[in-house]
Amino acid sequence: MNDLSRTGTPHFAALTEAQCRELLEQHTVGRVGWQAPDGPSIMPVNYAFQENTVYFRTSAYGELSSLAQRSRVAFEVDGIDEASASGWSVLVRGSTEGVTPSWTLTSLWAEGPVPWAGGNRTLFIAITPMTITGRRVQAS
Amino acid sequence: MNDLSRTGTPHFAALTEAQCRELLEQHTVGRVGWQAPDGPSIMPVNYAFQENTVYFRTSAYGELSSLAQRSRVAFEVDGIDEASASGWSVLVRGSTEGVTPSWTLTSLWAEGPVPWAGGNRTLFIAITPMTITGRRVQAS
Repeated sequence: MNDLSRTGTPHFAALTEAQCRELLEQHTVGRVGWQAPDGPSIMPVNYAFQENTVYFRTSAYGELSSLAQRSRVAFEVDGIDEASASGWSVLVRGSTEGVTPSWTLTSLWAEGPVPWAGGNRTLFIAITPMTITGRRVQAS
Repeated sequence: MNDLSRTGTPHFAALTEAQCRELLEQHTVGRVGWQAPDGPSIMPVNYAFQENTVYFRTSAYGELSSLAQRSRVAFEVDGIDEASASGWSVLVRGSTEGVTPSWTLTSLWAEGPVPWAGGNRTLFIAITPMTITGRRVQAS
């Protein structure tokens, strides 16, 4: 599925989709990758993984607000220890949409992701996964 | 420059370019974001930041090998502490090329980035930055 899993060395192990989902549920910070008008970009976000969907909250005036319109994105979460040269990463690829159903918004305002940053972050964006893949890496 | 810095809250602070460069020099794992044929993708890599260039090593047969041809990419490094809801991130946006000059390769094989994974990772790819931006975030 990805570059590193193709090497055939014993140092990489693919994660199962169930393991990937568990890691997505356990963490709260990930990175959105998308094609901005001036090229690829990556931005960290606070997120929540609920009912097979990645939700994050952003400002209606910021760069990420363009993703309220349906867009292809990558979403990555990882846990990497530079000192021991080991870690894991999970990659979600899918498409975005702004969250508009009021019952979903009610639930997200109550239990959804809380950005660390203050300010007027009233736009919820959902990423519906098309693929979820992951791997572990360990130094020999 | 980015979504979060536009909020005007005291919780975000832009990093200077000098601070961003220092963080790039201090770390060894980052994430490449690029537009793959089937949409945006993100992959962690081991890298080295030398002479204003991000270098990483990959397999000539993997997904990232397409970046040996000049491509626009994003490259992100961060240090995020989920427990304290604080962290920093640095974003390099620029373009790639495969490294071919033999004097550069000599230096990279001697002192360049060493992937954790084994296997046949003989392709060095360079990212020449067009912009380098970063920010710190701290919970209130």
